[in-house]
Amino acid sequence: MDRNKEWVMNEIEKIAHFGKGSRGITRLAFTETAVEAQKYVISLMEQVGLKIRMDQIGNIIGRLEGRDDSLPAVITGSHLDTVPEGGKYDGVTGVIGGLVAISRLKDKGGLAHPLELVIFACEESSRFGFATVGSKAMVGLANVSEWSKAKDQSGLSFAEAIAQNHLDIERIGEAARQAEEIKAFVELHIEQGRVLEKEQKTIGIVEAIAAPTRLKIRVEGVAAHSGSTPMEERRDALVSASMIVLAIHEIGAEQSKYGTVATVGMLNVHPGSINVIPGVVEMWVDIRGVNHESIIECLQDIKDAISTIAEGQEIGVSIMLLSAEKPVNMNKDIISLVKKVCMEKKVPHQVIHSQAGHDAMNLSHLAPAGMIFVPSQNGVSHNGEEHTAIDEIMSGIDVLTETLFQLAK
Amino acid sequence: MDRNKEWVMNEIEKIAHFGKGSRGITRLAFTETAVEAQKYVISLMEQVGLKIRMDQIGNIIGRLEGRDDSLPAVITGSHLDTVPEGGKYDGVTGVIGGLVAISRLKDKGGLAHPLELVIFACEESSRFGFATVGSKAMVGLANVSEWSKAKDQSGLSFAEAIAQNHLDIERIGEAARQAEEIKAFVELHIEQGRVLEKEQKTIGIVEAIAAPTRLKIRVEGVAAHSGSTPMEERRDALVSASMIVLAIHEIGAEQSKYGTVATVGMLNVHPGSINVIPGVVEMWVDIRGVNHESIIECLQDIKDAISTIAEGQEIGVSIMLLSAEKPVNMNKDIISLVKKVCMEKKVPHQVIHSQAGHDAMNLSHLAPAGMIFVPSQNGVSHNGEEHTAIDEIMSGIDVLTETLFQLAK
Repeated sequence: MDRNKEWVMNEIEKIAHFGKGSRGITRLAFTETAVEAQKYVISLMEQVGLKIRMDQIGNIIGRLEGRDDSLPAVITGSHLDTVPEGGKYDGVTGVIGGLVAISRLKDKGGLAHPLELVIFACEESSRFGFATVGSKAMVGLANVSEWSKAKDQSGLSFAEAIAQNHLDIERIGEAARQAEEIKAFVELHIEQGRVLEKEQKTIGIVEAIAAPTRLKIRVEGVAAHSGSTPMEERRDALVSASMIVLAIHEIGAEQSKYGTVATVGMLNVHPGSINVIPGVVEMWVDIRGVNHESIIECLQDIKDAISTIAEGQEIGVSIMLLSAEKPVNMNKDIISLVKKVCMEKKVPHQVIHSQAGHDAMNLSHLAPAGMIFVPSQNGVSHNGEEHTAIDEIMSGIDVLTETLFQLAK
Repeated sequence: MDRNKEWVMNEIEKIAHFGKGSRGITRLAFTETAVEAQKYVISLMEQVGLKIRMDQIGNIIGRLEGRDDSLPAVITGSHLDTVPEGGKYDGVTGVIGGLVAISRLKDKGGLAHPLELVIFACEESSRFGFATVGSKAMVGLANVSEWSKAKDQSGLSFAEAIAQNHLDIERIGEAARQAEEIKAFVELHIEQGRVLEKEQKTIGIVEAIAAPTRLKIRVEGVAAHSGSTPMEERRDALVSASMIVLAIHEIGAEQSKYGTVATVGMLNVHPGSINVIPGVVEMWVDIRGVNHESIIECLQDIKDAISTIAEGQEIGVSIMLLSAEKPVNMNKDIISLVKKVCMEKKVPHQVIHSQAGHDAMNLSHLAPAGMIFVPSQNGVSHNGEEHTAIDEIMSGIDVLTETLFQLAK
């Protein structure tokens, strides 16, 4: 079968139907919808002749043996889970693109190294609050004690959610692989920003990935009747929380000169009734950047602003640091190789930073890792309007194919 | 059975067990928990010998015939549904208090008029966004076309919710009663404010009830990736919504000299994920007061503030007026009667405004209506900490009993 432009467009559309809603695609990790999409892609992988296995965190690994089975594998892949109301291209581009690349290399024949396509489990943090779960487990960085405590918004625990996929939280350790098994990892992904579009480049070669620093903030006021409690006697948790949201936005704007950003993406009001003054507000903050000092300063400024607000409003605020990781560099040899491939193919390209986290961050702990970005129209991502032109995706696949070939030949 | 102080305390505690959680009591209208509590209270009503019926909106009516069945009934009652994480006394005080009053008058014997105890359905607006549903239907003010559109947070429609209670939305009109059937309505309730406590009075005689004006505000920004979208390119719906929350709070504070209050009690963020900039925020506003001009001014100021914010932030905001009712006066003769009873019993009392809405507002359209308030400790209500001293509840029951006697004798 010729896995050409029409085939790629068609398959991206087909996968988009799993979890499609009016505002975007919702395929949260480990849900039935995500599993359905995965089953569909496994059938495509089988058509290419890959040998499929699922590891103990739910990563799907499709392998094509090389001339010498004892050589380490060259791996590509991405994810199929989405944020709530996300887009068609985030993750899917790298899964379908990787499949096309491997299928072309199989047709070409005669590679020394095995090739693997991985569908990483639970890349997005939307369901349980932590991201790139599958790749963390694969490189032996599973934080089982932390993951055991997590619940989704419906109250289902992480352990229960993976058990629905016949996975046992006690056995996650078995998903870990050895450095000797992997020669390199290269992921194709959409940029999710607008640098490439602005610079009119087709390919971004990722130099460093910004890791998120994440906070959970809990604001404790006093719930009271919305009619009979005078304004001056209120300790309204939502009023204080609103001040905190604005402070975080302002601090993010101050640090934006260093490329740092700060977002409150989730906020819940308790008890959440039209006739009750909010008693408790919980919110989640996501801070990212590639300048570590700027992130540290941002964090300190947020803490200081919250103290001032809590004191002024006479409310209680607790801050929990959920994660604080340093930016991760991609492998220099892979960056050079992708650059060389782009030059040979005469594809407009540039070196770029990724502000979004990716599975490649984790794989870099085990093997040389790199990423190939294709442009996102208007920089929109994590939104039903997410779009990347098919010709740009095809260029990304061409560069990925040649890169994998050079690594595996 | 002697329905004394211990009995009342005991029954209030027993009812509190239906829907009890760690932060308060949750018995949303028409839920299984609310129905269970209702069944329990019906058993108490049957012990007093009341004849029970349920009308087509789910109001429970317990009737004690008088000497002359053709005379109009004297009605008392309140509600058993609560806000999420509410208190033990809101509504329950008037149901149990009314039952004790009728039981005492039955024991005394020889009343001319029938007495009725009503458990009004869906008094709180927490589940569907509109309040005092049962009493509206009873006085023929059911807004079936509006109610048909309502859904609760789980997406269940109002029609489906009442159908679970074997009620048919098409037949709500049958719950309407005629003015000739009702001589008077008197409701015992907790104040839910702190006027009585401050003034050291045991009884509040309600002169006017503030009716809520309610808005739904929808803020439309652009959902985008929280890592890869620069601060200056964001149109974050939660940042704008936070500005609106603070503006509403400030406007409420300005109008508080006229006794007006303004609250944002509910706020939902979409898509609501730690790694997505909020695209849409919906919030609900509750404005109350007894000064109609002040409410109108408050409303206008909120609209103006929202226009300014929407323009400055380049976001879309739509405002929907959910309800706008005028303050309701209680019947002068009933106010005088309760005053006389208090004086005869030497109970410290004063005339008071109710900032909270009550079923008595609606009953006043059909018959002379009045309300008797007992103090709320620290003014706390719609909160698990809600408390009223048992001796004050017993004083309220004494005053209610004598008032009902004077009306029904």
